Amino acid sequence: MSRVLATDVPRHVGARVRVAGWVHRRRELKSVTFLVLRDRSGLVQVVLPEPAGVTEESVVEVEGLVVASDQAPGGAEITEPAITPLSGPVQAPPFDLYRPNLSATLPTILDNAPIALRHPRHRAGFAITAASVAGYRAALDALGFTEVHTPKIVATATESGANVFGIDYFGHRAYLAQSPQFFKQSLVGVFERVYEVGPVFRAEPHDTTRHLAQYTSLDAELGFIADHRDVMAVLREAVAGMVGAIRERAAESVALLGVRLPEVPAEIPAVHFADALKVAGADPDEPDLAPADERALSEWALRTYDSEFLFVTGYPMRKRPFYTHPDPARPQYSNSFDLLFRGVELVTGGQRLHRYDDYLAVLADPEPYAGYLAAFRHGMPPHGGFALGLERWTARLVNAPNIRQTTLFPRDLHRLSP
Amino acid sequence: MSRVLATDVPRHVGARVRVAGWVHRRRELKSVTFLVLRDRSGLVQVVLPEPAGVTEESVVEVEGLVVASDQAPGGAEITEPAITPLSGPVQAPPFDLYRPNLSATLPTILDNAPIALRHPRHRAGFAITAASVAGYRAALDALGFTEVHTPKIVATATESGANVFGIDYFGHRAYLAQSPQFFKQSLVGVFERVYEVGPVFRAEPHDTTRHLAQYTSLDAELGFIADHRDVMAVLREAVAGMVGAIRERAAESVALLGVRLPEVPAEIPAVHFADALKVAGADPDEPDLAPADERALSEWALRTYDSEFLFVTGYPMRKRPFYTHPDPARPQYSNSFDLLFRGVELVTGGQRLHRYDDYLAVLADPEPYAGYLAAFRHGMPPHGGFALGLERWTARLVNAPNIRQTTLFPRDLHRLSP
Repeated sequence: MSRVLATDVPRHVGARVRVAGWVHRRRELKSVTFLVLRDRSGLVQVVLPEPAGVTEESVVEVEGLVVASDQAPGGAEITEPAITPLSGPVQAPPFDLYRPNLSATLPTILDNAPIALRHPRHRAGFAITAASVAGYRAALDALGFTEVHTPKIVATATESGANVFGIDYFGHRAYLAQSPQFFKQSLVGVFERVYEVGPVFRAEPHDTTRHLAQYTSLDAELGFIADHRDVMAVLREAVAGMVGAIRERAAESVALLGVRLPEVPAEIPAVHFADALKVAGADPDEPDLAPADERALSEWALRTYDSEFLFVTGYPMRKRPFYTHPDPARPQYSNSFDLLFRGVELVTGGQRLHRYDDYLAVLADPEPYAGYLAAFRHGMPPHGGFALGLERWTARLVNAPNIRQTTLFPRDLHRLSP
Repeated sequence: MSRVLATDVPRHVGARVRVAGWVHRRRELKSVTFLVLRDRSGLVQVVLPEPAGVTEESVVEVEGLVVASDQAPGGAEITEPAITPLSGPVQAPPFDLYRPNLSATLPTILDNAPIALRHPRHRAGFAITAASVAGYRAALDALGFTEVHTPKIVATATESGANVFGIDYFGHRAYLAQSPQFFKQSLVGVFERVYEVGPVFRAEPHDTTRHLAQYTSLDAELGFIADHRDVMAVLREAVAGMVGAIRERAAESVALLGVRLPEVPAEIPAVHFADALKVAGADPDEPDLAPADERALSEWALRTYDSEFLFVTGYPMRKRPFYTHPDPARPQYSNSFDLLFRGVELVTGGQRLHRYDDYLAVLADPEPYAGYLAAFRHGMPPHGGFALGLERWTARLVNAPNIRQTTLFPRDLHRLSP
């Protein structure tokens, strides 16, 4: 008899089925025992005349008769069950997984991640994450992008000398890549349009709710652009693809968590950095936006454009990395952007320098960048790209106050396991 | 005028178009100059009455009239061109990218990877890689798998204490993950079926043609299996999905490289390790298969089953990692397998231990594995999985003698850049 998933059981009323999963909840009353079984699809109730002899989180196989029941979740339950334990004896979980919410502190939840993640509400966020990535790839595939896989061990710090993890590489000093920046730019010379979904590493010495030592970066880079606005148009498609895929592939998780999915405007509104400071009421000489400014700007965009997304363009050159392309008309500003979503910076991107001489002009010592600069010595088109932090995206969607809640096994200043 | 891709130019005979790309080849004859332009789609020829003043690998935009031409690739070429350079002055490439093959040694090619990869034959392998990964994901998505992203920085060496890169992690000792093994097993407890496509790291001290310090591992793990054969059935679907996606998404690269795609049998033939030794003519006391044995077995499978794939099952327990599940009938053998493809081991997999007590019995010191063992303390189903080396897969497909030829920017004992 082949296995039936929990949520499919109601379609088998009157038949005998085999289900398998974890004992999610056990209620032993005087004359009847209820077991709620959990599998990857959801929950199903099993009814026995006597105690079942299995504890919560035991893995069992159950064969029984499906009967309609108004009281049971899904409108059907399994009766006359024969129960076969599949795991060994099992210890009681550190918290009750069957309650609507885990009553434990975040550190306890993270210490027990392999168990906490089994909670339907915890698991649901990661179904949304998986759907998001699928949508991201599909959108960029449709635009002629090629997926690439680049080195995570590098000889030179990518973004800056700070916040980088050192490795002993066969007796040499090496580093964990802070981004695939140099590789994705080089690969514009090969494929014109590339993306990568992969881990990036930041030796972030601050303990905040929105930084991790490792996170998943959705990177893209494309050539033959007029300026950063062509990059923004591609990013809009990518984000729309992500939202669309969540709607299609993770509808149950969206419903379970009560996630309100955003509308992605056909053209996401944009405001120049200089104007953004005014809107946020910040000092006009500020070189960057503070988190409070980003929140104020998001509220403004919602009021003004009815949009939960807002591009801020033209950040001052002095706050952007060396490969940033200046705004030809106002060279103190850059052809760069951030995408704000529900009050936080979700994406950073922009046009890059593409002429070899321009790199020589901005790099005090080009020697460590020789491998990177090779692409530019031999002809590169105007290009640009962006990087979107995956865990941060899901955190904003599900309204998680801490990015660790949307990371399976977070790594930070204090946490290296599980 | 919006840009037309090179391979679409023949559809615009009689019209003026704008194309953009790299000067792939320049031939200046007495009264005429031919420029071959290369973009992400392919090549197109541009004809001028006089020298164009641009060198190979310059990036240019060309507007001109499309005329039919029997001599031109694709049957059409661009005449009366107006050429606009998009890159700065460009140095001559270290090798002629327009020749059918790069006439350079592998070290020279790898030293100049950002340029060498532009060669159509070099690039083509990576289009096949990208299609393979897309097919892998689609096959597993259809089977109810969830994609996950797990830590690459770990507190304990995954597979063994050897061949692991050490990291300074905020003053603590940490390691680069040799595989997502522990995480994917834990996540079977959450999602039942998971996969990950990501980098793995091996401090491989040997300089061979088939090992790298970083490669891309296609990992999967699934619960509620009877034994390793259920894992093999899923792997068969994944490989069939990869081949199917290559056929669909990378047909031009397949044609360019003359790749003969394999047929994936509905059921891939399998031979037990003990019989495999006999077939290979190896010593019956050998605990593992040598590379020559794997080649002999692949030849035998092709002769006997007309299959380029062969499962070898039941490797001796003493050669498999501690989490391997024994064969209940013959406990010196394991419920494990390798998948051989065209003479090499492409995939390793098997059933894992799933009972907490079984782990305590095989681990001399369970303390460093406490985070890993938590999942088993709280109920895990019988499960198993596999890991497929992506670069090795493409290398066998395109018949590359060295795995570095199917890795964008390889990392090995001697190479840390570009």
